[in-house]
Amino acid sequence: MFKLYYAPGTCALASHIALEEAGAAYTAERLDFKNSQQTTPQYLAINPKGRVPALVTDRGTLTETPAILAFIASSFPKAQLAPEDPFAFAQAQSFNSYLCSTVHVSHAHKMRGYRWAAEESSLADMKRKVPETMAAGFALIERDMLKGPWVMGEQYTICDPYLYTIGLWLEGDGVDLATLPKVAAHRKRMSERPAVQKVMAEEKA
Amino acid sequence: MFKLYYAPGTCALASHIALEEAGAAYTAERLDFKNSQQTTPQYLAINPKGRVPALVTDRGTLTETPAILAFIASSFPKAQLAPEDPFAFAQAQSFNSYLCSTVHVSHAHKMRGYRWAAEESSLADMKRKVPETMAAGFALIERDMLKGPWVMGEQYTICDPYLYTIGLWLEGDGVDLATLPKVAAHRKRMSERPAVQKVMAEEKA
Ligand SMILES: N[C@@H](CCC(=O)N[C@@H](CS)C(=O)NCC(=O)O)C(=O)O
Ligand SMILES: N[C@@H](CCC(=O)N[C@@H](CS)C(=O)NCC(=O)O)C(=O)O
Repeated sequence: MFKLYYAPGTCALASHIALEEAGAAYTAERLDFKNSQQTTPQYLAINPKGRVPALVTDRGTLTETPAILAFIASSFPKAQLAPEDPFAFAQAQSFNSYLCSTVHVSHAHKMRGYRWAAEESSLADMKRKVPETMAAGFALIERDMLKGPWVMGEQYTICDPYLYTIGLWLEGDGVDLATLPKVAAHRKRMSERPAVQKVMAEEKA
Repeated sequence: MFKLYYAPGTCALASHIALEEAGAAYTAERLDFKNSQQTTPQYLAINPKGRVPALVTDRGTLTETPAILAFIASSFPKAQLAPEDPFAFAQAQSFNSYLCSTVHVSHAHKMRGYRWAAEESSLADMKRKVPETMAAGFALIERDMLKGPWVMGEQYTICDPYLYTIGLWLEGDGVDLATLPKVAAHRKRMSERPAVQKVMAEEKA
C-alpha cells in the first residue's frame, strides 16, 4: 500500500496518474499549499525538501518525479509503463529528466522566483520571461521528442502523464497551445483515458 | 563504442567518470565553451539542447546526466554501478534527480541567469543568492542523503561521480567545504580512485 502526498495543480499529478494506470493500491493525501502545509514540521519529517510529490512505501519514502515514476513502473510490470529495452528505458528517463530539470524549472520561475533571487524587480523580470522559456522547452518536445501517439511511440509510458501534467501549465504560462499541435493532440488523448479522468476528478473535488 | 561530448568543469564529468569506472570502450570529445561550440549547427545536430553531456551510442544519442548514468550502469552490469534492488535503484535515481533538478539548477544561476531573466540587475541578484542555495542543497545531502562511505552506503554507484562533480563547484559558489565534513570526505575518497584521477588528468590536459 502506497501513500502519495500531492497538491492540486502541481507536478505530483504525474505520479498520481501513474499509480492509477498501474492499478496500484494507494491513498492520496492532499496538502494545502495555500496554508503552506508543505513547510510544516509534520510534513518536513516526511519530505525534508518541503515539496510534493512524496511517495511513502513500506521500504521508505521516495521523492523526485522521475524516480517515483520509474519506481511505479518497475513495481507493476504488468502495466507495462516503461520500455523494457535498456536503451528505450534510458530515452524515457532522459525525456523525464528534461521535463524535471529544464521545463518544470522554467515554469517555477513564475511563482517561485524567490528561490533564486531576492529583489521584487528580479522576480518580475523572471515572470516576464516564462512564456519564452516554456515555449522554447515545448517547441523542442513538439519537434524532436514526442513520437506519437504517445511520447515513446506506440507504448503508453511514464513519460505520458508527466508530459500531460507539465503541459497543463502552458496556458497559464502564456504559451498558445495552438502553436503545439502534437502536444495538444497528446493532451486530448490523455484526457480520454479513464485513469486520467478519475484522478483529475479526485484532485478537483 | 560510445562517444561522450563534454566540456571541462561541467556536469559532463560525472558521465565521463562513470564510463571509465564501467570499463567502457569510449572516446571523449571536448567542446570549446569559450568559443560557444555547444551552439554551432554541427553540435546542435547532435544535441539540439546545446548542452553537454551527450552520449552517442550505436542506438542513438542520449542526453541528461541521470539518464546517461543509469544507461552506463545497465550497459556494464559487471561494474555494479547501480543497486539491483528496485527500491534502492529508485533511491539512487532520486538522489541524481535532486542533483540535476535542484542543486545543478541553483549553481546555473551564477553564470547562466540569462536563461531565466533579462535585466543585468536580476542576473546580479541571482548571482548573490547562489552561495545560499548551494549551501542549502548540500546541507540536505550532508544531513540526510550521503550514507557513507559512498552515497548509497557500501556500494559505489552512479550517484558518486555525480555528487563529486557538482561538489567541485562549491568553493567557486562561495560555500565553505569545512561546513560539510561528509561531503569533504567523499570528495577525498573519490579523488583517490584511479578512474577519477585518469579522467581529471584527461579533462585538464
Ligand atoms: N524535482 C522535484 C520538484 C518538486 C517540486 O518542486 N514540487 C512543487 C510543486 S510542482 C512544490 O512542491 N512546491 C512547493 C514549494 O515550493 O513550496 C520533482 O520533480 O518532484
Ligand atoms: N539537465 C542537463 C543539464 C545539462 C547542462 O546544463 N550542461 C551545461 C554544463 S554543466 C551546459 O552544457 N551548458 C552550456 C550552455 O548553457 O550553453 C543534464 O543534467 O545533463
